[in-house]
Amino acid sequence: MQYFEDFAVGQKFASGRRRIAASEIKEFAAAYDPQTFHLDEDSARDSVFAGLAASGWHTAALTMSLLVPSAFQPAGGIVGFGGELSWLKPVRPGDELWVESEILELRASRSRPDHGLVTVRVTTFNQHGEAVQTFTPTLLVNRRSA
Amino acid sequence: MQYFEDFAVGQKFASGRRRIAASEIKEFAAAYDPQTFHLDEDSARDSVFAGLAASGWHTAALTMSLLVPSAFQPAGGIVGFGGELSWLKPVRPGDELWVESEILELRASRSRPDHGLVTVRVTTFNQHGEAVQTFTPTLLVNRRSA
Repeated sequence: MQYFEDFAVGQKFASGRRRIAASEIKEFAAAYDPQTFHLDEDSARDSVFAGLAASGWHTAALTMSLLVPSAFQPAGGIVGFGGELSWLKPVRPGDELWVESEILELRASRSRPDHGLVTVRVTTFNQHGEAVQTFTPTLLVNRRSA
Repeated sequence: MQYFEDFAVGQKFASGRRRIAASEIKEFAAAYDPQTFHLDEDSARDSVFAGLAASGWHTAALTMSLLVPSAFQPAGGIVGFGGELSWLKPVRPGDELWVESEILELRASRSRPDHGLVTVRVTTFNQHGEAVQTFTPTLLVNRRSA
């Protein structure tokens, strides 16, 4: 577990890997993003994705599922206010995703003296080493002294 | 269905409502964001959330599930490159969410002359009229001429 004081700008933390099946892509889409290019191979072929692609929100949720058990373990949990989210490439059936987190900025919290603010860039890669998503949240992290 | 030419800055589109149960909060968290404050009332009470709260990614996915069947129906589907995502308030068991989309900007696409770029602010509200999340993506929308 890392307290605010344990982080330094430039530190990187890696996750494990998770393979995503076509059935999972369709199941998530049916629940949360029921658009044809996330649900059906034939319709997806003629869409802007030119083939079945995971919902961006599925990619984001999978990223979180990789981040939570990763080497990045901020004290108090991964609690964010949001940030810039970018989808760079479609995630396809059979893709194997993993996540790298890099510390970008460390700041004191004015409103919560027992916490610090950690800005981290979370990049999600596929098995070809291509970045499929970046998310750059600011997180609330416990101070050791707290 | 709205083509790029049908949109104007300032237009607003509303969604239906969706109530979120504690069981759904825990189920989503178990799959994608297994942190104690999303999984267990007792642990959540002592966390920064001071009670069970939905994963931000669950809020985002629920927002998409409200957006897809809403009055906002861009031609070609809701296809985005990402944008700024902000979580403003925790989502609690029993909350009833709905979404309002407002057109912020319309631009031509240089790389895709058959598409336009639509920047939209998607605000997710709870039953008290409080904004719990905003997301401001830029979307790729078919032109009528295409």
